[in-house]
Amino acid sequence: MVQSTQHPPHIVVSRLPLYLRCLMYMAAEGHKVTSSKELAEKLGISSAQIRKDLSHFGEFGKQGTGYDVAHLIEQLRSILHVEHEWPVVLVGAGDLGHALVHHTTLVNRGFRIAAIFDKNPAKIGLQWGTLVIQDVQDMAQVIREKGFRLAILAIPAQEAQQVADRLVEAGIKGILNYAPTTIIAPPGVRVEYLDPVIQLQRMTYYI
Amino acid sequence: MVQSTQHPPHIVVSRLPLYLRCLMYMAAEGHKVTSSKELAEKLGISSAQIRKDLSHFGEFGKQGTGYDVAHLIEQLRSILHVEHEWPVVLVGAGDLGHALVHHTTLVNRGFRIAAIFDKNPAKIGLQWGTLVIQDVQDMAQVIREKGFRLAILAIPAQEAQQVADRLVEAGIKGILNYAPTTIIAPPGVRVEYLDPVIQLQRMTYYI
Repeated sequence: MVQSTQHPPHIVVSRLPLYLRCLMYMAAEGHKVTSSKELAEKLGISSAQIRKDLSHFGEFGKQGTGYDVAHLIEQLRSILHVEHEWPVVLVGAGDLGHALVHHTTLVNRGFRIAAIFDKNPAKIGLQWGTLVIQDVQDMAQVIREKGFRLAILAIPAQEAQQVADRLVEAGIKGILNYAPTTIIAPPGVRVEYLDPVIQLQRMTYYI
Repeated sequence: MVQSTQHPPHIVVSRLPLYLRCLMYMAAEGHKVTSSKELAEKLGISSAQIRKDLSHFGEFGKQGTGYDVAHLIEQLRSILHVEHEWPVVLVGAGDLGHALVHHTTLVNRGFRIAAIFDKNPAKIGLQWGTLVIQDVQDMAQVIREKGFRLAILAIPAQEAQQVADRLVEAGIKGILNYAPTTIIAPPGVRVEYLDPVIQLQRMTYYI
């Protein structure tokens, strides 16, 4: 199999985390092997698409025997660079930040909140789990010292661009933005969005 | 201009809410007119792409004078079916649900939480804003009576498919799923996802 030295299309890359999530549930349920057909049924994606997507990155299954679940998890973790946990900076200690810190969503999936920043004096100094909420004024320095690369923005829209600029200047390469606004970032910095209204409007178009 | 009677590609539809969000910020800042060039700078999407996307739905701008902001907002709201507010059912009264109900993210953007359900007896009966958290056992009946079409799932992954099945059976046509798992829905029902880990992994691939 020929592996391209270029990145596959982003749409292909964007499906890999879905495969990984599904495989991890299967592993947790005790499945040792699976097939593109079984994955297709669980994911609502065609088995041909799944095989084609995976073929961009190597040969993971055997004709007739399917995929070894643990092996495919390991490979996908390696491809997505989540073999180890990434420390993530959280900016904004509101309800959303609270949910992210206190729930198990991130655990065992490649990420942990490693620092929390807020500008509200009433929040600074509070302890959330093992972390103490820090002053956003110290954010850039902490990011540089620790070499953090990922950040989650859970702050109001009107502050998002300015804080994003400071994150990028301090060395952040990926921003997950919960603020309901677009962020402009320089080349080499990726931004992903979580705005429930955008997702809802993508459904109401069809209803 | 010829308008197709078929839906444009979903990738085109999926960008319209971003245009609408941007235009609403511009309107709030007092902008009366804009251009594809100005939108491009604010959105990080090329002006040619923006013009092409909008051309699927009609002719909104004039050569040389650009777009009337208020008119384009009105048109996009109509296209996305958010001229009026959609009542949305929230299932799950945890931190995430709390953030959705108490923050202004949804207001003026086409949606309002109209009912909240949880299975936890300690939550049922509590008042959040103007709403009282109801027993999830009554969910299907309430959805049928009120004719609700949209739901947000903010519950653990292992319960998501079962609750989604009940929502669909009661008449829900669109589910925004915060649970970190894929939901299989019948044709005619749309599912959108908000899982921060999926978005983070889509960035770490490139870092």
